[in-house]
Amino acid sequence: MEIQYFFELFGTLFFGISGALAADEKSGKDWFGVSFVAFLTAIGGGTIRDILLSVDIIWIQDVNLLYSAAVGIILAAVFYKPLLALRKTFKLFDTLGIALFTIVGLEKALNLGIHPVIAPIMGMFTAVMGSVIRDTMLNEIPILFKKEIYASACLCGAVVYMILWKCDVDRNTTFFISGGVIVVIRLAALRYNLTMPKFKSH
Amino acid sequence: MEIQYFFELFGTLFFGISGALAADEKSGKDWFGVSFVAFLTAIGGGTIRDILLSVDIIWIQDVNLLYSAAVGIILAAVFYKPLLALRKTFKLFDTLGIALFTIVGLEKALNLGIHPVIAPIMGMFTAVMGSVIRDTMLNEIPILFKKEIYASACLCGAVVYMILWKCDVDRNTTFFISGGVIVVIRLAALRYNLTMPKFKSH
Amino acid sequence: MEIQYFFELFGTLFFGISGALAADEKSGKDWFGVSFVAFLTAIGGGTIRDILLSVDIIWIQDVNLLYSAAVGIILAAVFYKPLLALRKTFKLFDTLGIALFTIVGLEKALNLGIHPVIAPIMGMFTAVMGSVIRDTMLNEIPILFKKEIYASACLCGAVVYMILWKCDVDRNTTFFISGGVIVVIRLAALRYNLTMPKFKSH
Repeated sequence: MEIQYFFELFGTLFFGISGALAADEKSGKDWFGVSFVAFLTAIGGGTIRDILLSVDIIWIQDVNLLYSAAVGIILAAVFYKPLLALRKTFKLFDTLGIALFTIVGLEKALNLGIHPVIAPIMGMFTAVMGSVIRDTMLNEIPILFKKEIYASACLCGAVVYMILWKCDVDRNTTFFISGGVIVVIRLAALRYNLTMPKFKSH
Repeated sequence: MEIQYFFELFGTLFFGISGALAADEKSGKDWFGVSFVAFLTAIGGGTIRDILLSVDIIWIQDVNLLYSAAVGIILAAVFYKPLLALRKTFKLFDTLGIALFTIVGLEKALNLGIHPVIAPIMGMFTAVMGSVIRDTMLNEIPILFKKEIYASACLCGAVVYMILWKCDVDRNTTFFISGGVIVVIRLAALRYNLTMPKFKSH
Repeated sequence: MEIQYFFELFGTLFFGISGALAADEKSGKDWFGVSFVAFLTAIGGGTIRDILLSVDIIWIQDVNLLYSAAVGIILAAVFYKPLLALRKTFKLFDTLGIALFTIVGLEKALNLGIHPVIAPIMGMFTAVMGSVIRDTMLNEIPILFKKEIYASACLCGAVVYMILWKCDVDRNTTFFISGGVIVVIRLAALRYNLTMPKFKSH
């Protein structure tokens, strides 16, 4: 449990940074609007997960997650130029965020005895719903519904986790392999412009 | 209870089909994006209902609903052309879906002892909130807020249900009459382009 | 508790009025669509608050809130022209609504033992999430994310409440001072076009 908590804090921090930069880039809002959007990005996925799992919302019970997101937003404001310049690093923050959140969400669901087919979906929702909420409110089509490989990378990593878990691989190995799968697929998709086939061509 | 469960499964299947076709028609996304949108369409209404009623979310507890939606999406992919050609049949699927979901949601609320003025709203939400979520995420104005008669047909059928229920009409008759009211109003509205009066003319 | 209940009813009424006028102005929908949007505006913020606090949704348990919103919508329809002409009065309704809802939401959170840093956020969410839901569904950027001072006025008033509460000021004084802070900041911002500084200039 303890390392999971640590991961949730770090995921929230990463999402606070990437949420603030995304909100500012997309529309140059005032600092209050940017902070609000960044905060929703950082805690949105975990909120959806906890509502669906019928448990207390984690950031309402534990103010440390709020502080994590706040630190991320402040870091984004202070190190704005280097972070913008290092766009690749910034994508890495978002990628690390979705990898951590997928596994944290998946493990929380498994601990609650959720069906092994539903648990990976909870992991994916934890990772991507924050940015879906952000984009929907900013009146943009969420990245999820574009051809980019994003949520599918999370689901892939979650399925790998379930397979290793069923094979009784130890927890830390399972964590690093499945998290690595998410990071590698996402970075490969960005680098080589990988996309999924269309549902049906028109 | 058992027949209600059966109806929830069928409603989810119908919504999986119409959600997948709508998502694909609207933007020609990849199969992952289309499946994601179709899934949200199929389970979104029931999710909102269960959150508002403070009960466990049905598809988290029972993986069969997920399978129902998946079967609907696969059917949409396999029988894509005939289903597109049979547009009228497709609207019938959506219409059957909202009729089933309205009654299922209404009965679930009544079983929980919800106030008879609130229960029909729960029925309507079960039926229409899935497509509201879908359209909001796809950056379109939900059909609900257009002049079409859609959610109002559900509310109408739900009110008919409540009247028959108060008059102690037996449950199956109540079900078929109120479900029929929804189907007939919706199909008549589509066929004859019926609309509601404006709130205030400008 | 009793006066809080009274405030929640009045806040809902005010939001029913302003929600109906906003929905009609923005797109001239039919009376059903306008009522639906106005209803979501009026009960949306309290719904989000109750979901986040893991308590029963207030309007599901207590049909009087529904009636309050309905009275607001009917008032908006009957006194449409004078209300439109009195645009300033209309903004006052919305402003009174956010002031009441901020304090009601904040006090509900405090009564549940929520952390004093989280409670003001619950107050702000109660006040602004209804209009965020409305604008998101109508496919507009929520006022919250524009440069206008709106949610930040609520948060300001909530922080003032917390300070007075910590200083053991009596409850009614606390209520009127913090509510007054919200009204004054919001009206001053509207009157003098006050805005917040940008996060980062481009």
